[in-house]
Amino acid sequence: MLDSPAAVLTAPAQNRAARYAAVRSQTAEICRPLLPEDTVVQPVIDVSPPKWHLAHTTWFFETFLLAKHLPGYQVFHEQYAFLFNSYYNSLGSRVNRADRGTLSRPPLADVYAYRAYVDEHMARLLAPYADASDVPFAELFELGLQHEQQHQELLVTDIKYILSTNPLAPAYRTDAPAPGNATAPPPAWLRVSGGIGTIGYQPTNGDAPGFCFDNELPVHRTYVDDFELQNRLVTNAEYLQFMAAGGYQDFRHWLGEGWDLVQAEGWQAPLYWVERDGQWLRYTHHGLQLLDLAAPVTHISFYEADAYAHWAGARLPTEAEWELAARHFSPNIENGNFLESSRFDPAPLAADAADDECHQLFGDCWEWTYSAYHPYPGYQKAAGALGEYNGKFMINQMVLRGGSCATPVSHIRTSYRNFFHADKRWQFSGIRLARGL
Amino acid sequence: MLDSPAAVLTAPAQNRAARYAAVRSQTAEICRPLLPEDTVVQPVIDVSPPKWHLAHTTWFFETFLLAKHLPGYQVFHEQYAFLFNSYYNSLGSRVNRADRGTLSRPPLADVYAYRAYVDEHMARLLAPYADASDVPFAELFELGLQHEQQHQELLVTDIKYILSTNPLAPAYRTDAPAPGNATAPPPAWLRVSGGIGTIGYQPTNGDAPGFCFDNELPVHRTYVDDFELQNRLVTNAEYLQFMAAGGYQDFRHWLGEGWDLVQAEGWQAPLYWVERDGQWLRYTHHGLQLLDLAAPVTHISFYEADAYAHWAGARLPTEAEWELAARHFSPNIENGNFLESSRFDPAPLAADAADDECHQLFGDCWEWTYSAYHPYPGYQKAAGALGEYNGKFMINQMVLRGGSCATPVSHIRTSYRNFFHADKRWQFSGIRLARGL
Amino acid sequence: MLDSPAAVLTAPAQNRAARYAAVRSQTAEICRPLLPEDTVVQPVIDVSPPKWHLAHTTWFFETFLLAKHLPGYQVFHEQYAFLFNSYYNSLGSRVNRADRGTLSRPPLADVYAYRAYVDEHMARLLAPYADASDVPFAELFELGLQHEQQHQELLVTDIKYILSTNPLAPAYRTDAPAPGNATAPPPAWLRVSGGIGTIGYQPTNGDAPGFCFDNELPVHRTYVDDFELQNRLVTNAEYLQFMAAGGYQDFRHWLGEGWDLVQAEGWQAPLYWVERDGQWLRYTHHGLQLLDLAAPVTHISFYEADAYAHWAGARLPTEAEWELAARHFSPNIENGNFLESSRFDPAPLAADAADDECHQLFGDCWEWTYSAYHPYPGYQKAAGALGEYNGKFMINQMVLRGGSCATPVSHIRTSYRNFFHADKRWQFSGIRLARGL
Amino acid sequence: MLDSPAAVLTAPAQNRAARYAAVRSQTAEICRPLLPEDTVVQPVIDVSPPKWHLAHTTWFFETFLLAKHLPGYQVFHEQYAFLFNSYYNSLGSRVNRADRGTLSRPPLADVYAYRAYVDEHMARLLAPYADASDVPFAELFELGLQHEQQHQELLVTDIKYILSTNPLAPAYRTDAPAPGNATAPPPAWLRVSGGIGTIGYQPTNGDAPGFCFDNELPVHRTYVDDFELQNRLVTNAEYLQFMAAGGYQDFRHWLGEGWDLVQAEGWQAPLYWVERDGQWLRYTHHGLQLLDLAAPVTHISFYEADAYAHWAGARLPTEAEWELAARHFSPNIENGNFLESSRFDPAPLAADAADDECHQLFGDCWEWTYSAYHPYPGYQKAAGALGEYNGKFMINQMVLRGGSCATPVSHIRTSYRNFFHADKRWQFSGIRLARGL
Repeated sequence: MLDSPAAVLTAPAQNRAARYAAVRSQTAEICRPLLPEDTVVQPVIDVSPPKWHLAHTTWFFETFLLAKHLPGYQVFHEQYAFLFNSYYNSLGSRVNRADRGTLSRPPLADVYAYRAYVDEHMARLLAPYADASDVPFAELFELGLQHEQQHQELLVTDIKYILSTNPLAPAYRTDAPAPGNATAPPPAWLRVSGGIGTIGYQPTNGDAPGFCFDNELPVHRTYVDDFELQNRLVTNAEYLQFMAAGGYQDFRHWLGEGWDLVQAEGWQAPLYWVERDGQWLRYTHHGLQLLDLAAPVTHISFYEADAYAHWAGARLPTEAEWELAARHFSPNIENGNFLESSRFDPAPLAADAADDECHQLFGDCWEWTYSAYHPYPGYQKAAGALGEYNGKFMINQMVLRGGSCATPVSHIRTSYRNFFHADKRWQFSGIRLARGL
Repeated sequence: MLDSPAAVLTAPAQNRAARYAAVRSQTAEICRPLLPEDTVVQPVIDVSPPKWHLAHTTWFFETFLLAKHLPGYQVFHEQYAFLFNSYYNSLGSRVNRADRGTLSRPPLADVYAYRAYVDEHMARLLAPYADASDVPFAELFELGLQHEQQHQELLVTDIKYILSTNPLAPAYRTDAPAPGNATAPPPAWLRVSGGIGTIGYQPTNGDAPGFCFDNELPVHRTYVDDFELQNRLVTNAEYLQFMAAGGYQDFRHWLGEGWDLVQAEGWQAPLYWVERDGQWLRYTHHGLQLLDLAAPVTHISFYEADAYAHWAGARLPTEAEWELAARHFSPNIENGNFLESSRFDPAPLAADAADDECHQLFGDCWEWTYSAYHPYPGYQKAAGALGEYNGKFMINQMVLRGGSCATPVSHIRTSYRNFFHADKRWQFSGIRLARGL
Repeated sequence: MLDSPAAVLTAPAQNRAARYAAVRSQTAEICRPLLPEDTVVQPVIDVSPPKWHLAHTTWFFETFLLAKHLPGYQVFHEQYAFLFNSYYNSLGSRVNRADRGTLSRPPLADVYAYRAYVDEHMARLLAPYADASDVPFAELFELGLQHEQQHQELLVTDIKYILSTNPLAPAYRTDAPAPGNATAPPPAWLRVSGGIGTIGYQPTNGDAPGFCFDNELPVHRTYVDDFELQNRLVTNAEYLQFMAAGGYQDFRHWLGEGWDLVQAEGWQAPLYWVERDGQWLRYTHHGLQLLDLAAPVTHISFYEADAYAHWAGARLPTEAEWELAARHFSPNIENGNFLESSRFDPAPLAADAADDECHQLFGDCWEWTYSAYHPYPGYQKAAGALGEYNGKFMINQMVLRGGSCATPVSHIRTSYRNFFHADKRWQFSGIRLARGL
Repeated sequence: MLDSPAAVLTAPAQNRAARYAAVRSQTAEICRPLLPEDTVVQPVIDVSPPKWHLAHTTWFFETFLLAKHLPGYQVFHEQYAFLFNSYYNSLGSRVNRADRGTLSRPPLADVYAYRAYVDEHMARLLAPYADASDVPFAELFELGLQHEQQHQELLVTDIKYILSTNPLAPAYRTDAPAPGNATAPPPAWLRVSGGIGTIGYQPTNGDAPGFCFDNELPVHRTYVDDFELQNRLVTNAEYLQFMAAGGYQDFRHWLGEGWDLVQAEGWQAPLYWVERDGQWLRYTHHGLQLLDLAAPVTHISFYEADAYAHWAGARLPTEAEWELAARHFSPNIENGNFLESSRFDPAPLAADAADDECHQLFGDCWEWTYSAYHPYPGYQKAAGALGEYNGKFMINQMVLRGGSCATPVSHIRTSYRNFFHADKRWQFSGIRLARGL
């Protein structure tokens, strides 16, 4: 999910101006605890400076909406397109991704002025349309909001990474939730019947009407065998057992490229874990905290998820299995632990959670699947610059499903496909086990 | 196909000693035109020195068969296991892959002595069993032969790469086939009906009994929509049109990582193509030759195959589509252009080839599919060292199907899954177009 | 001059508290035009974030003076030693140099608080001593001031680099001096008699009493032949002639490693030069400015200086020649163009400058010599951590002499040895030609 | 000494044809124990394949002599200039240095045929001149011989490196000298008076008439203080004491860049040393051998030599000191341990060696000096391609003096300047201590 895809709109949207304002202010809210200095740095290429996110999302509205649909619109600054284009070849040259962290200017204050300028013009653009159902730029507008929500999640995870690399281990927020060292209920296996199923965005079949990305289409049939899924995510306590059993030392559990990485990087635990005086701590948005044993393990690569599953005598689900199971168990998405909880961490499952329900499918952690991020049968990328939104990333990445504690709740869907390279660990990624019958 | 997988044996084998001798002498025959100097170098990490292939295949028989099943067997040289183990962590430390080309010793003559020593002891091992149906090491024996055949193909492609990087452009053989500049017949689209199909190795359903790799199993059901496949491979003439249309200059056709590679490496044509005085030449096993316009384009990466398909308004098949189509059209595999033709190049399709048959499915070029090399549902890797044969490579690689002009004919099957990273070009890889309906 | 050397004190210092305050406020003054964002980034490893310079110089006083000589001193923050130690192995582990630009914390405000805290305690430390001649930490105190002055120069050049890499090309100051496109007077050759000369810091022989670095000692004899030196620095106009004559395209002028660099980096002009519409501009502290033809060429590597000299039929001086000539011509150092001029650029020589005087020896540009930075005969490095100040850099670097427009005037001396690797260009480095007789 | 310099001829040469034949056959003799496979590989960029040395030295005669001075000469192969040019930009493009080890062709037999062809034509070229004193190409002829001798030394050291990297540790020769574990006599300090001295090639002052490289000129005056030199090289026993004292673990002894290298490369001992069962072995031309404690330590970088000297409370000599001492003590060069001894290793000093003589100045080990390889005052590089022989390397390298056990005895002189980067270890480099008074 380096950025976001071309939009597909299935239902008329309402309250556009209010929704725009809500999404935009949510972004600023995420950045509020930051100092100007925090918004500049880029400790690794994957992590963009928060200042860049703030400007890039604004550039998106300026470029795809204002420049095309608001007559007489003057860009805020003629060089911002060069500075804040992410990866659209269609839209010209741009700053090298690796150099984003070298740019001290424009300062944060100018970026906020840029946001205000674009917001003001967006209000003008939206004014004539209010709740109109026939809006020439409806799809682009929706896409702009979804795009900004994707960057909200990236802001949350990039801020964590930026602060974590600092030897002072500063906290993003100081209101840490009390560490719940309670035990999670033991996992249970839930059976799902196979056969031909249908996956992809289906507003007529339970998916919330409104919007989906092009990579969730076409809706299509797929075949899966009967399978079982665990009813909750793998916990830190369980992952510690894998570590204690020598999981990071035994090549037999690992894919070859994963094992090479374990050796080269000296991985011994998930990202952000620190052992101190025989105790495991984790860097969190609230600073270094004791490991919560009952909480889902997170910040792991696909390789670690797969190795854990192998060690546990299970496997990861495919994305079709995951989506069909989610449609089958159909939990209430709103109940999940999302960005809006301000927890910024996956939460332990309640001790009395029902055995026969499938918990934590939405929110908490993105769940690695053993499916490559490829086009669905019949996939067509959009024309123009938006054709670069999703399609060109469909190689060498793995699909993750279900959203995380950093995802805005209104952003996720059963058909939502997130994707990252198998070695990435800075997202809130976790493990759900599957097995055949 | 960096190496080879664990074996599955479905039928009793016969004439073991004769088959062993035939395979082993085929390897030596491939290396016969080489000078000792040619057998040492490793111009890039993917390409192993021929001397190494000759020794590594021998080490495989020594380690997996003689050391375990021939009582009193003494290894030829105690350090050869360190020198010639490819990637088996189970079998201890080994020379770094990137350093294979720094080893002048043992000299080629010693490696041939090693081969003779192992062959002699293999004869002793096999003698008591002749055509016996109950052989304790039958599976390993079959695997050893298949493994050696895989390295025969790698020898052919590695030798080509080694000689091609030499400014003297030496020919491996001097008996070049006459360049046939005839035109290939225009391609035709063949329709294949979808539904639930069954893929994987099925000796009871047309696949030759004997052997398959573990990655071809389990046999399982899969669903595909109706689709169309072109009845032949894409030709050099067609690929030149893509180039002339600016295919290598237009990012819109490319996956993002492919486009980055085109820029970084300055790709303007397939591997081995050289423009001279306005004419395209290709380095071949017979030295630099005029491009044969009617022949299938080869030595292209997955990225190029996918970009071509996009430009042509089509797509690549999935591996399920490919296998189901192959089972549907069911051509006679023996008729393909394989290693035994000694052509060392894909061959143009005859001008009068039938429109309604599916040509070149086997031999000529490995066909890139848009399917990641992942485990089939229910896949189990073998116990012990052979568990490292196939399973650990099941990430970040794409499946290719059908064999090539460098594949031994007895090595290929309808269910055979070859795999390479999307950027690799030194294999005889090609393009077959597909499209939905 | 990555940092600074162990001190040698030759005369009692006076007004310590006032001098301390003056030097410290000079540093803050240099940083005054910066925004917090500007103080964080590190576009290349050579260039440290201004925030780091501000803290590191403070850490130096804290570590070498307060911690040792002010009873009961409590460090401002126990982790700052890890964050702001530059390269002293004696003083423990530290942040990797390449990672300085990833540290957003402590924020700039905290660093200024750190400075205030240390300044306050330094005042307490100095109070009892006033102008006392017998001070236990006199040498370390002087060294601390000199060290801070070295970082003032680095701040000036690092700030320039940081702002220059920004596509917005922001100006550090807006009061650019009027571009003087006047012509410089033609250069004249001045003869210097050779023989045995004495170099090194000699307060009894004209050098200002007070302080020198250990690398300027011991004073020792050296032999040079008669030689000639040009009476001014090479100008931009002259350097343009070299460029027009194909200087960057003709390998014959270049040292081998220099030529490789020209190829690899695509160098076509000095650092910061930009050609636009057929005109050469230069990025300066005042933003992009027209090239001043009469001003000395600057921001060139040793390789470029040497290639220019070769093209001009001359050579660079050795450091012994340079120092002996400086002692011979003995210009008034105070007249030079230093940091205090706030010009931040070398200045053109007045059109009526005397032919028989040696101009621009001090200030304007550091002058590359063809002398490696090696220990003087009998050199001894200091004991303890300060032994790491200078001695360990005495390999693979070239000596520069005379100070620049970014050097504090009170910091330079005739015996002063600056040093950089031959490929470095971000300092105000320039060319003075020499030749034999 | 990556290659060799432009020639200066001071006396008429005699017996040219015989000398040519002797030098050329010496090269072939060095390569005689090699297998064709050994002559191809290049384990690191510094080490060229022996086949390349054999051809490159031949190309030198072909290019600089035959092509210019033998009417009607036809080059042996038109592409050999591309293959075997080392670094002469004047002579066109060439194979990248790093790729020399990828070239299996031309095979060794062809290279020997090339040598025979050039030798035959050289005989024709030389025939009319016999012992003539007026020969138009006399200087180039001498240079060709000296150049070939330089490559003889490189062949010896490159062959050692190539075979050493092989896990089989093959011996180049099997006639190892008996390990003499005798103790070397304790070192003595010899005093040398300073003052103005004259260095550079001086046939009128004791240097053998005939030839020198341009980098040994001009003869010039230099000043040194009185100093002392040890009367022999540092031994393995002494170096072991440095190691036992934690020399490789204590940064205080090391130059900064050296210490970084020790960390990065994990250096714990000189190159080729291997600890096994508590005993130190060394890889030699005779395979792995017990360390000879009395023999000079060799295969060390400048950094190690300097760190050792620092630990020992001494320093390395400058090249001026070394040469003036060599002129003062004036040992008989022919008595040294050179290539012709076929020992291929520095030899222990006899137990009864005189205290007041300076031993091992010539042969055994090249002695690192603390002098950068820079031009002598007034140095002029030759016109044309030979101007690239020496001058362009005069940056970032250190001077070594005195020749080694791999140097042909007729190749060395008191004024001879060898040079390598400070990190290089694969030459026979050693340590002689100096100190001031």
